[in-house]
Amino acid sequence: MEAARQAGSAPEAVGGIDLGGTKIEAIVTDTSYRVLGNARHPTPTTGGPADVANAMAAALTEAAKAAGLEPAQLLGVGVGSPGSVDSQAGTVARAENLPGWYASFPLAAALASALGTKVTLGNDVGVATNAEFVLGAGQPYRSLLGVFWGTGVGGGLILDGQPWHGRGGAGEIGHTVIVEDGRHCTCGRRGCLEAYAGRGAMELHARSLHEKGEKTRLFELAKEHGRDRLTSGIWERALEHGDKMATKLIDRAVLALGTGIASAVNLLDIEAVIIGGGLGVRFGEPYRDRIAEAMQPHLFNDSRPPAVHLAGLGDLGGALGAALLVAAK
Amino acid sequence: MEAARQAGSAPEAVGGIDLGGTKIEAIVTDTSYRVLGNARHPTPTTGGPADVANAMAAALTEAAKAAGLEPAQLLGVGVGSPGSVDSQAGTVARAENLPGWYASFPLAAALASALGTKVTLGNDVGVATNAEFVLGAGQPYRSLLGVFWGTGVGGGLILDGQPWHGRGGAGEIGHTVIVEDGRHCTCGRRGCLEAYAGRGAMELHARSLHEKGEKTRLFELAKEHGRDRLTSGIWERALEHGDKMATKLIDRAVLALGTGIASAVNLLDIEAVIIGGGLGVRFGEPYRDRIAEAMQPHLFNDSRPPAVHLAGLGDLGGALGAALLVAAK
Repeated sequence: MEAARQAGSAPEAVGGIDLGGTKIEAIVTDTSYRVLGNARHPTPTTGGPADVANAMAAALTEAAKAAGLEPAQLLGVGVGSPGSVDSQAGTVARAENLPGWYASFPLAAALASALGTKVTLGNDVGVATNAEFVLGAGQPYRSLLGVFWGTGVGGGLILDGQPWHGRGGAGEIGHTVIVEDGRHCTCGRRGCLEAYAGRGAMELHARSLHEKGEKTRLFELAKEHGRDRLTSGIWERALEHGDKMATKLIDRAVLALGTGIASAVNLLDIEAVIIGGGLGVRFGEPYRDRIAEAMQPHLFNDSRPPAVHLAGLGDLGGALGAALLVAAK
Repeated sequence: MEAARQAGSAPEAVGGIDLGGTKIEAIVTDTSYRVLGNARHPTPTTGGPADVANAMAAALTEAAKAAGLEPAQLLGVGVGSPGSVDSQAGTVARAENLPGWYASFPLAAALASALGTKVTLGNDVGVATNAEFVLGAGQPYRSLLGVFWGTGVGGGLILDGQPWHGRGGAGEIGHTVIVEDGRHCTCGRRGCLEAYAGRGAMELHARSLHEKGEKTRLFELAKEHGRDRLTSGIWERALEHGDKMATKLIDRAVLALGTGIASAVNLLDIEAVIIGGGLGVRFGEPYRDRIAEAMQPHLFNDSRPPAVHLAGLGDLGGALGAALLVAAK
């Protein structure tokens, strides 16, 4: 805390950490959310929550240094986390893409102790949606649905200018059932949007088709680029090579996204849909167009579709949304 | 207007009209929404909007008389209407279950002139949902989804204590896609919940199966009871007779309702679901249980399902919700 007490001349700044299954993105911004420094560290794949918290603290410390600050000089640090987040208690449980993280872990307290400033937790997709609303492509609207197309398919809602969390678990658009008794989903259920469009589910499906003898360059490409998983970049390269299986699976994903998003629009009649996430950001405008086109046949008010935009903040949306949590306190 | 001016000693009362495809339900209530008088008239099946407006005025006048009042003595009359309702303009367009009602018709002005009091319009399902929230089974909750299982499958939302209309067209849970490229829906699209669960769609499906030689007593029962359509009562009788086709179609409808409602819960995480509508009210508690059970396999947070209740106001919910529009002005 000494650094904070001596920080009379330092600029007012906040920190934001986006905790993903692959990487930890940390930023330090001024109070207008201009990025002053950032750092990206890989997420630990072994150990437990305490190891992940250490890696997060290291990333945030590096981002603060890049901004010429000590973490303890920050007004606070926000965290966007996967799993079941209890903001009030400062805990995260059941973060299934993170190592050994099933039981509830006091992440806010662990980080506050390591960084010497207060820490606020939020849901990763929720804060990324709010970032798009406050700072990104959602700025012109009062109601929107954020769809994060990546390893899974996450969703976030802004209704009448406020984040909507329901009883705490709202936004699970990835688990909209689009085909009753359809494909097995990684959540253990069947026919969910995510089972057709999530990168995780698509990789499992591609592997199963490949093992049955269907040809694809997806796994060779991953090996050539030193990847042990089919990243967004690998899918993009396979499409560029005209790989038939990759094309078929991505085409199917686009249709699934169109169906699931259209059902949400029919229920909520929101003004805008914002497409983000690893695949969403990587594939960009042509896929924004394709998703909007795939929604059209399922829209009840088809003469008045919502605006569909690409996420305006790209990869930094999650960390910016996390930083916004500090001001929200 | 003379009656209104002379009404110093009359009780303060409001009117509500629920305009359905089959019947017009009119009520007059005191300002605590206790019913003082009501009347039910068949909806005209020929003519146009002006004829429907006349029938509505006649029904409301009869309800007022039963309460010992003239329509012009009412503080106002609310109307829950199908179709595309513009509350501000006082118009209704595209009420496809009503005769000759495609173009916009100034229903509020027509009724105000016939009744001598101000008239406020709302969406039929929206006002019925609000009635359950304010006066019915939804009273303990701040967020709920109303599902009206009848000729179609309509939906209404209360979020954080306020009706949610989106850009004016929210609540179309009947057009949640539950089977991509699935059964043809009466809306012209495919695979919608309503295509499996709406009474209109089920009747078309039953007729088509019957014409292909599949046995059912549904159409005989309708004839025996002097019905030209398969009403809720006819479906109930067929189930009581153990009719195989009726059982199969209703079982399929229950599964479809479970799937579509669960997807909405996954997105919104609302506290409660209220089941109403002609079939919902007729089939009652055993089907409330069955729908809740059919939701369960699709709920992402399956350890914490929302409460599922039957509509508490039964058939009068629509008219009570319409009456609530008067106070809301």
